[in-house]
Amino acid sequence: MVFDIYTLVEAIWLILPAYAANGLTPLIGLCKNLHPIDGGRKLWGQPLFGEGKTWEGLIFGTLIGGLIGMVEMLAYPYLPFGISPEPLNIVPMSLLLGLVLGLGAMLGDLGGSFIKRRLRIARGRPAPILDQEDFLVGALLFSLLLVSLEWDWVVLLAVITPVIHVTANILGYLLKVKKQPW
Amino acid sequence: MVFDIYTLVEAIWLILPAYAANGLTPLIGLCKNLHPIDGGRKLWGQPLFGEGKTWEGLIFGTLIGGLIGMVEMLAYPYLPFGISPEPLNIVPMSLLLGLVLGLGAMLGDLGGSFIKRRLRIARGRPAPILDQEDFLVGALLFSLLLVSLEWDWVVLLAVITPVIHVTANILGYLLKVKKQPW
Repeated sequence: MVFDIYTLVEAIWLILPAYAANGLTPLIGLCKNLHPIDGGRKLWGQPLFGEGKTWEGLIFGTLIGGLIGMVEMLAYPYLPFGISPEPLNIVPMSLLLGLVLGLGAMLGDLGGSFIKRRLRIARGRPAPILDQEDFLVGALLFSLLLVSLEWDWVVLLAVITPVIHVTANILGYLLKVKKQPW
Repeated sequence: MVFDIYTLVEAIWLILPAYAANGLTPLIGLCKNLHPIDGGRKLWGQPLFGEGKTWEGLIFGTLIGGLIGMVEMLAYPYLPFGISPEPLNIVPMSLLLGLVLGLGAMLGDLGGSFIKRRLRIARGRPAPILDQEDFLVGALLFSLLLVSLEWDWVVLLAVITPVIHVTANILGYLLKVKKQPW
């Protein structure tokens, strides 16, 4: 297993719709009267997912994934992948793959919230690693519906995602976009 | 990357001292007058590591690692690795490698506690994934001092460790050895 710039480019190309979905969905929190997916239902005395997980967020994140997937597809012919001395394994990006990655990211995040609520970790409280990786697991699993993955991408993304996530969150906190630095 | 019974045997053989160190060190909590590693020192208003991380635990876990490493070394000639149709890549286990794995596991766990305290997650409160993987990361990094690892082992262990950890903890909780089921 080798981690070089080629692996990085291939992996980022694949996961970009999921990153965008995961990163932009919190914006839906600016809207009012959102509809929690759990509809207030509880399990073991705690919310099933919590008020932070809404149908609007799920749909918005999926659409963001689709949008970025389409942008990547349209941008593909203009990108200089050909200058690579090694032939790159660039997965065929599409609106559909973007939607699937966005939906997978949202459902992975939902799974993470499910685990946190079962462990009685309140909404907004951190769960290091889980908070950063849940959407990635969901997106990668869902992407298998359409493409085959290289293990190098999975391992590289598992390592760099928390780093990128934490960096972005601290930036968001400093810019006062986010309430907590995680 | 292939995950078969051979990979599993090789990976478990390597990590067993760390699993034993991580699993048995909580027993040190039965002793009194333990010495917290942070000596009560704080960072950002929270304990540096917390009272649960003690010098006695660090030393005990390292010794357990060494003990299991030695047992594996002594058991090696009597184990039926030869019946494998594929030649196995069994790392040369030793007292030293066991100690290094045990110490790495303890320091990884300490790092996990450091992160939890910085995020103001109290002692005994769960941090899913982090709680299960911190010792593994420490043990694998330290093992690199003595042996080279196959990526297959790393990925397989990363996947099975939380499963084993959670199963063992729930068992411990049901047997009333542990206060929390995590």
